[in-house]
Amino acid sequence: MIAAMHTGSYSLSDLVRRLAEYENLFEIGGRLAGTLDVQTVLERALENAESICRAETSSIWELDEERQELFFRVVRGKAAGALRNLRVPVGQGIVGSVASSGVPEMVNDVASDPRWRGDSTVFQTRAILTLPLVAEGQVIGVLQLLNPMDRDRFTDGDLRRMSLFAGIFAHPLQNARLHMAQQRQFFNMVTALAETLDKRDPYTGGHVRRVVAYSMLLGAEMKLERGDLKNLWLAATLHDIGKIATPDRILGKPSPLDREELEIMKRHPADGAAIVSHLHNPAVLQGVRNHHERVDGKGYPDGLAGDQLPLVARIIAVADTYDAMVTNRPYRAGLPPEKAAREIVSSAGTQLCPSVVKAFRTLYKDGRFTVDGGEEVLRSITEPV
Amino acid sequence: MIAAMHTGSYSLSDLVRRLAEYENLFEIGGRLAGTLDVQTVLERALENAESICRAETSSIWELDEERQELFFRVVRGKAAGALRNLRVPVGQGIVGSVASSGVPEMVNDVASDPRWRGDSTVFQTRAILTLPLVAEGQVIGVLQLLNPMDRDRFTDGDLRRMSLFAGIFAHPLQNARLHMAQQRQFFNMVTALAETLDKRDPYTGGHVRRVVAYSMLLGAEMKLERGDLKNLWLAATLHDIGKIATPDRILGKPSPLDREELEIMKRHPADGAAIVSHLHNPAVLQGVRNHHERVDGKGYPDGLAGDQLPLVARIIAVADTYDAMVTNRPYRAGLPPEKAAREIVSSAGTQLCPSVVKAFRTLYKDGRFTVDGGEEVLRSITEPV
Repeated sequence: MIAAMHTGSYSLSDLVRRLAEYENLFEIGGRLAGTLDVQTVLERALENAESICRAETSSIWELDEERQELFFRVVRGKAAGALRNLRVPVGQGIVGSVASSGVPEMVNDVASDPRWRGDSTVFQTRAILTLPLVAEGQVIGVLQLLNPMDRDRFTDGDLRRMSLFAGIFAHPLQNARLHMAQQRQFFNMVTALAETLDKRDPYTGGHVRRVVAYSMLLGAEMKLERGDLKNLWLAATLHDIGKIATPDRILGKPSPLDREELEIMKRHPADGAAIVSHLHNPAVLQGVRNHHERVDGKGYPDGLAGDQLPLVARIIAVADTYDAMVTNRPYRAGLPPEKAAREIVSSAGTQLCPSVVKAFRTLYKDGRFTVDGGEEVLRSITEPV
Repeated sequence: MIAAMHTGSYSLSDLVRRLAEYENLFEIGGRLAGTLDVQTVLERALENAESICRAETSSIWELDEERQELFFRVVRGKAAGALRNLRVPVGQGIVGSVASSGVPEMVNDVASDPRWRGDSTVFQTRAILTLPLVAEGQVIGVLQLLNPMDRDRFTDGDLRRMSLFAGIFAHPLQNARLHMAQQRQFFNMVTALAETLDKRDPYTGGHVRRVVAYSMLLGAEMKLERGDLKNLWLAATLHDIGKIATPDRILGKPSPLDREELEIMKRHPADGAAIVSHLHNPAVLQGVRNHHERVDGKGYPDGLAGDQLPLVARIIAVADTYDAMVTNRPYRAGLPPEKAAREIVSSAGTQLCPSVVKAFRTLYKDGRFTVDGGEEVLRSITEPV
């Protein structure tokens, strides 16, 4: 909500300054609303908050509604290190009481505020400006500035400007949070679906989870960006989704497949691609469709070779092949990891992509090619809350 | 983008008026950004556009990027009827050229504009104010006002105010479009998945599609709101998703199931519920989990009775039962529709919910209980583009 202004008592130069402030806020509002990525909204918000009111540290606390706690995703400035990972219950301290009251607070002498519990590090907090982030009548977080720069105190002007800013910023943040929550819900459902499907094959339980983890490790080792890792994750989760159409007699056959059965089994990448094509995500489509290709062009369904083969597919191929080799089948025992690793390395350039195998080799040599490690990468690219 | 103001040449009262305008725009911006529903954003936008600049007709054209055409979702005022369903190629006419240039245009004498092709109805267009909607540098649509009210011409002030408004409105519109596109993509994928799964049961091909269509008919007849119909749609699409875990030998058995097989078959509502629980959508969860309950409490898995039974589940139960009855099984022929309809009616109060059966009866009697009819309802609740 924007407080109504009483323009009657202002001078011409006041009005001109305010108009300029408003124009600046319009531009900032456009920048904040221009993305649905939470991290980007938050980073842009702090950059712009600094341009409006310089402070030694600025931070945005988000509300975890379920736990009624405030937590951080972004902090900038001197006290950043000390604040990260902090969680504060609603109602507690200055931040917590602003979250519960929904009313901004300017505390220029924190030492004398009974809610203040002191600094936990060498950073010395003198003054705090705290603003609730309110979207559609609900507090969704708190914006906080510590210690104005080059000045002793925050001013009423700071409070007014930052309140306007908080008003502009809350909705883009909330929209990004909703968008990512929707994405996460669908991703989680799709994961549950893929893992349920996984259970139909009695001999490969947990295969999807492991292929996802290994793919994450390889992707991170190959320095894929966050967005690409997310696509890789979704593709790896869904890589075998086409098996939804594969009959049990083939999926669960306790002996090697004959030629006709193999042909039916080989349909799953294309069947899966038909399903994920609706996501309009080329990387996911390629990962699902082409995870059984070979760099020498002898794979299926498209017989792509070398550089024609999308990176996502080349990564999943290594993860999938390694897991298939170490897994027991009723008609053969799984290979010991070292032996499977040697096989992977020797398949570079024929079945598997040399650069992915190189990443595999490094990870394996360092003892980092583990499901736990892969799941840690996965957590790092997943949004909290 | 907000044009920089040259405040030097304005009087105090000009500045005060502008400040008030800006404050109004901030509030409007907040209202527009407060939702991710496209229809709501558009409706709020037109309401607010009218409060800034009154015109006989106001409309928002959206860009269909694939086809490079502009189309409508909302139109208000006198010419609304004539404009709806119109599509205009980018580059064509005044609207099309603003979409392609990205530059606002004020045409106060349309008759003399070579791009003007005349009115198609009795509505007489005199003046047009057309503004591009630009998000992150891309034109995503066009805002258009026809004939200023109580005045002859649009003014430079109208152009300036509406340009500011268009700047504030474009991002919320784009965000809502992206959000709904993401939703649609996942829905489409889930539909493809459910239909693929459907094919595993060789005797019930097309079952999901028909249950969705019948559920839509029943829901619309019972006057469910748009949001509830969407949940019903998703629940009906996913009602049998738990069969992903049902073995082929049971799913495809060419004779009635024995007791042990029946017990395994009966797990699918709970298995499906576990998968869709990740959507955090209670209606979808209930629809999937409880579509085999009976109003007399003798169903499964929870034995819910009467009003305990969620409406979504009661609707899907009627749709599902009807389709199962008319479908051929290898060990029995499907019932003729009239006989199945009589069975449905006679199950009211024991297996099926009387109010849903009442809706079924009306639809059936009027010859409206058809897959085509249901798919028409579905189209009406689905966003274009």
